[in-house]
Amino acid sequence: MNGGLRVGLDIGGTKMLGVVVAADGAVVAQAREATVAGPAGVLASATAVLDRLAAALDGALPPQIGIGFPGLVDHDRGAVSHAVNLGLGGDWLPLADLLSARTGAAVAIENDVRAATWGAHLISGEDDLGYLSIGTGLAAGFVLGGRLRRGATGASGEIGHVPVDPHGGICSCGQRGCLELSAAASALTAAWPTDGDTSPAVAVFAAAADGDPAAIAIRDGFCARVADAIRMLGLSVDPAAIILGGGITDLGEPLLEAVAAALRAQAATSQFLAAIDLAGRVRLLPAGVPAAAIGAAMIWDAR
Amino acid sequence: MNGGLRVGLDIGGTKMLGVVVAADGAVVAQAREATVAGPAGVLASATAVLDRLAAALDGALPPQIGIGFPGLVDHDRGAVSHAVNLGLGGDWLPLADLLSARTGAAVAIENDVRAATWGAHLISGEDDLGYLSIGTGLAAGFVLGGRLRRGATGASGEIGHVPVDPHGGICSCGQRGCLELSAAASALTAAWPTDGDTSPAVAVFAAAADGDPAAIAIRDGFCARVADAIRMLGLSVDPAAIILGGGITDLGEPLLEAVAAALRAQAATSQFLAAIDLAGRVRLLPAGVPAAAIGAAMIWDAR
Repeated sequence: MNGGLRVGLDIGGTKMLGVVVAADGAVVAQAREATVAGPAGVLASATAVLDRLAAALDGALPPQIGIGFPGLVDHDRGAVSHAVNLGLGGDWLPLADLLSARTGAAVAIENDVRAATWGAHLISGEDDLGYLSIGTGLAAGFVLGGRLRRGATGASGEIGHVPVDPHGGICSCGQRGCLELSAAASALTAAWPTDGDTSPAVAVFAAAADGDPAAIAIRDGFCARVADAIRMLGLSVDPAAIILGGGITDLGEPLLEAVAAALRAQAATSQFLAAIDLAGRVRLLPAGVPAAAIGAAMIWDAR
Repeated sequence: MNGGLRVGLDIGGTKMLGVVVAADGAVVAQAREATVAGPAGVLASATAVLDRLAAALDGALPPQIGIGFPGLVDHDRGAVSHAVNLGLGGDWLPLADLLSARTGAAVAIENDVRAATWGAHLISGEDDLGYLSIGTGLAAGFVLGGRLRRGATGASGEIGHVPVDPHGGICSCGQRGCLELSAAASALTAAWPTDGDTSPAVAVFAAAADGDPAAIAIRDGFCARVADAIRMLGLSVDPAAIILGGGITDLGEPLLEAVAAALRAQAATSQFLAAIDLAGRVRLLPAGVPAAAIGAAMIWDAR
């Protein structure tokens, strides 16, 4: 009996997480594999996760699989490309057809931030939200009036590449002073290098909590830039809720508190900002919930 | 016979423009009055326009009136406030009820930029657009998948108050370096003062067309900031079309050409920007079409 079950696969640069989701949204099975780079590696890793999920379901996968992919997605062809972290370049990999042939299931692929946005919508119950993904990079997704926004060219939510400082550095996108340069986790890595056992974000927040003045300045400066990103969501789309996700949200409540404090500090000098109460609209996803994989599993409903 | 006719009223700081629009979108009557400031003045000016439209219709107004208003709008109460250009402060003026009592018609009020956005949607036929209003200030509106976006707090489209320069001046909203400071007509007034007979925008573009190097630099710098605003629309909402409106679009094709050139210059250093082709998506409304008044007349359909 696979009635109403869906499979979601969140493809990341270091790991792939697969889930089986019941009709009520409950995750009934999970499997994780390290990602092997390159077209053959990505296909093999994905197949390994799906095989383990099938085994957990007594051998048979449900008829629909959804995938969140960290690169360009051609929705019509179910093909992917340009995923630097996966070792995929400009050639199109027909991932949907390849996985469909191996599993017998229909396969839908969505950009990973948008898959996580759809997951955040399902998990939070919010019909109108901006999802801000803060990891190595910075990007957003929107569910507006219950509908997932893709945009005319798939660039909806790419606020990490809005320049906000004419004197800033050059971004990998070719522009100068992009928001991503100061509001993504890579900014903390540059400001507070670690030996690799502890993430820079965790180390900075721990040292700041211990009262280290340099760490406090770095933490608060970073959170002010995240607040800038939230303000950009508020002054463009004005979503009812703003939900933080991505790797950095492993920091939990201390991150939310520092970001809310930065939003309140910005509103203190502007009645205009105070009136729209961004601090009161920002929240974290519940810890440990695989939003991107759940959103991928249910992405069929967003089409 | 008033079958299918609607009335729209575009309230501005210096004038009010009323239109009667037929079911097919054609403007069948227009009337214009100077705006008198203050609550009693606004009411009297609006009534004068509506009386003239009624006279053009043999005395009877259609049953629905829509208004575009340049300030805060309480949709539930049909009340307005905080319109500096109209001499209205923080007290709420129940404009819908007052005009309804005088005319017998039902009255709906919308923010003026959103009314113009809805008008741009109807005039252009585009179901997915960002409308950029460039006048004394800078603001945007969105129609996404055929639906007018208001946002959770009415702040949707307020991109003029996104800071883009940490070293910029202080904005009237209390923040530093807002986009509006450099991408609205007031920036041209500051850079190229005139005696008042010719608008600074017209004077700068005329001098630039004559080859004046200072005017060319001011024109191109201004259009680069307008391009920044368009990029912000593209990287947040990613609308299929971006339509320029507001007072400055009286400049016509030379404005569109200079803005498109600025967008192409930005894309020349960024494959990322080149791929989303903002220059190919930007356009002007047809000259002389009263988009805000038409949008106000048809705003009932956007509810």
